[in-house]
Amino acid sequence: MLAQISDDGGVEFARPDRPLIRADDRAVVRGDAVFETLRAAGGRLDNESAHLDRLEGSAAAMGLPVPDRAAWTELARQVTAAWGARSEGMLRLVYSRGVEDSGRPTCLAMMSSVPESTLRHRRDGVRVVTLARGLAAADHADAPWLLVGAKTTSYAVNMAAQRHARAIGADDAIFLATDGQVLEAPTATVVWAVGKTLCTPPVEAGILDGTAVRALFRRAPEHGLSTDIRRAWVADLHAADGVWLTSSVRGAVVVTAIDGQVRGDAGLTPRVQSAAGL
Amino acid sequence: MLAQISDDGGVEFARPDRPLIRADDRAVVRGDAVFETLRAAGGRLDNESAHLDRLEGSAAAMGLPVPDRAAWTELARQVTAAWGARSEGMLRLVYSRGVEDSGRPTCLAMMSSVPESTLRHRRDGVRVVTLARGLAAADHADAPWLLVGAKTTSYAVNMAAQRHARAIGADDAIFLATDGQVLEAPTATVVWAVGKTLCTPPVEAGILDGTAVRALFRRAPEHGLSTDIRRAWVADLHAADGVWLTSSVRGAVVVTAIDGQVRGDAGLTPRVQSAAGL
Repeated sequence: MLAQISDDGGVEFARPDRPLIRADDRAVVRGDAVFETLRAAGGRLDNESAHLDRLEGSAAAMGLPVPDRAAWTELARQVTAAWGARSEGMLRLVYSRGVEDSGRPTCLAMMSSVPESTLRHRRDGVRVVTLARGLAAADHADAPWLLVGAKTTSYAVNMAAQRHARAIGADDAIFLATDGQVLEAPTATVVWAVGKTLCTPPVEAGILDGTAVRALFRRAPEHGLSTDIRRAWVADLHAADGVWLTSSVRGAVVVTAIDGQVRGDAGLTPRVQSAAGL
Repeated sequence: MLAQISDDGGVEFARPDRPLIRADDRAVVRGDAVFETLRAAGGRLDNESAHLDRLEGSAAAMGLPVPDRAAWTELARQVTAAWGARSEGMLRLVYSRGVEDSGRPTCLAMMSSVPESTLRHRRDGVRVVTLARGLAAADHADAPWLLVGAKTTSYAVNMAAQRHARAIGADDAIFLATDGQVLEAPTATVVWAVGKTLCTPPVEAGILDGTAVRALFRRAPEHGLSTDIRRAWVADLHAADGVWLTSSVRGAVVVTAIDGQVRGDAGLTPRVQSAAGL
């Protein structure tokens, strides 16, 4: 399922197996685009407004034109309606600067089935390795060109980290800052439990503001869990009662090993997954 | 001018104003591609083999299939022949992982005119600002997932740095490591003169191996200039007899100011530009 916002602001469906993007689109030549990934279930999108809010924040950080909220909402809704309620879907919104010097951004939405690997991770959990991110954990508010907190499509390092993790027998990675501080996973937020308190690092560490973790923390009290935002180092993850990676489509997947060290979840995963809405 | 390597390994020309890339190409959704930019002049490409060598190195770092050297050479040559000898051109080669899970990479070549801003920079030089890159200057050989030295299309930060520079009245930027060490410009290598010696930072500082600077250094002795690879801090640039940014299409452009401090070139720029081959 593929559609884009047309020049007149309407929704235009396209065949997903046909080219839609020009070779000189800035998304292609410079990773000069932002994106969001949403979960569709039962014909509805989870946390739609939080994702559109973040898309707007990412666009602002990149100096892209302010997204037309009504047009994006209509795009997302039409694609979701066309996908239907029968199966879970993964909706990707991509907002690119468009063809060079055209001043006309590319705005598209793609719905596809939830990947098999995602279903497997939800069921079996993931073994992770910690990998240096090469970046200091710092407040980068004074360095807006570093685009910390913007969800851009410049994900080559994130993808390389996941490939590296798989090459050495793990499923995914957790990035560490130069001081060893826990940052985030390449495509997810890190959450850990201390007793019945769920914790996650502050966005000030230089990470993305996760929509899934926010939804999880909002619903946690209904499930008998409290929440806290705090910095952590690898030792804190090893000492935790449970560790999870949260993302919109995966929900909360349990971490079963860190750097080869097997770990448990104190039986909390079903409760955490319920709170995550999956 | 636009062409791609077709499924059978041949060269297939396409209309540049028509979509060529699928929305789910990994270049679009994940900046999961590598590229090269070459200068064409008089119907020939400058430093063609150095660029194809680096494309292969970038591909290896990204775990992309080994590029078919003969097919890429034929692609570059046919596009260059079609462009002709009458005007200078900028040839971009893009090698993407292709459509997700297809296992079929996207291999394309785009020739366009040299941008007006490039011609202006060659003539008038550039005012630069130094910007923190957030990365330590280090040998990242033990962290291959950071893709240091690979020329990926995940250039959102590079583009944001250039936009930031322009927004504060400069033309371009020079990135500094967390210890203040000089790294590189977003799309160029930094070169400075100490007397008649041209200097540039080592790739071990965590920067791209510049093809233009290598060509410049190879020809420098013929122009009465010696060369050296050494680390530098901003003070070294201020103290230098001249500072230039080198890239394949711009050649060597003189830096006329750093962080608002106007600087000269000791009359060396014509000689450096000749040695750069432009």
